[in-house]
Amino acid sequence: MILDNLAERDCIELLARQVLGRVAVVVEGRARVFPVNYVLDGGHIVFRTDEGTKLDAARAGAVVTFEIDQSDPLYHTGWSVMATGPLETVTDSQELGRVRGLPVRAWGREGQHWVRMPITSISGRRISGVLARS
Amino acid sequence: MILDNLAERDCIELLARQVLGRVAVVVEGRARVFPVNYVLDGGHIVFRTDEGTKLDAARAGAVVTFEIDQSDPLYHTGWSVMATGPLETVTDSQELGRVRGLPVRAWGREGQHWVRMPITSISGRRISGVLARS
Repeated sequence: MILDNLAERDCIELLARQVLGRVAVVVEGRARVFPVNYVLDGGHIVFRTDEGTKLDAARAGAVVTFEIDQSDPLYHTGWSVMATGPLETVTDSQELGRVRGLPVRAWGREGQHWVRMPITSISGRRISGVLARS
Repeated sequence: MILDNLAERDCIELLARQVLGRVAVVVEGRARVFPVNYVLDGGHIVFRTDEGTKLDAARAGAVVTFEIDQSDPLYHTGWSVMATGPLETVTDSQELGRVRGLPVRAWGREGQHWVRMPITSISGRRISGVLARS
């Protein structure tokens, strides 16, 4: 089995292609992980949310982790990308007007608030190889 | 759109059915998220790993978060389950012999080490509803 680190441009390309990822927020020293529908908008991960852990993190400007992955269990190939950055609310009315036009659905509730994470670091890895049994 | 909290037994059932999840480990105040192939063994999430963040967390007995989710983008339905517990290495030779018989593949490298997370808390939610556009 082969494990490769992905180049930054490959990580960005994978982020641009997917629609479902996970945001991990640290609360009282423990990670909380939430699936979100998102869009990559320039260098930002953009998604909608409602009152709760993610919006609290955005209001506090907390650094969060965003993760996407895909796996083919039959051929045991897969990849994952992890990005980090400070989560922020989108409040500027002009910018809000623009992001509202982006093709993002809320995973959960209606998601009245728009938040985004500028990507400050990114890494990824790809696995390829034969079926590996324990 | 309807958002429902899942009963604990439903969360457990979903954990028992899936094979790919994500482990979130807090390192220096930030979450790191790794896909893993796992199996639910009694009340434990069991997976294989190699030297690195996850094994360090297991050796330290760090409390980690385990997440699984599934989503149907077309019908905008989905669910996610989040479990937490202290990660631990499996070192007892008898127990090691037993877990080696479990149907778990390493997601990444060969995964020479077996680790497990006894589930100490679990929650989940399900979304059902019509297609929601921004």
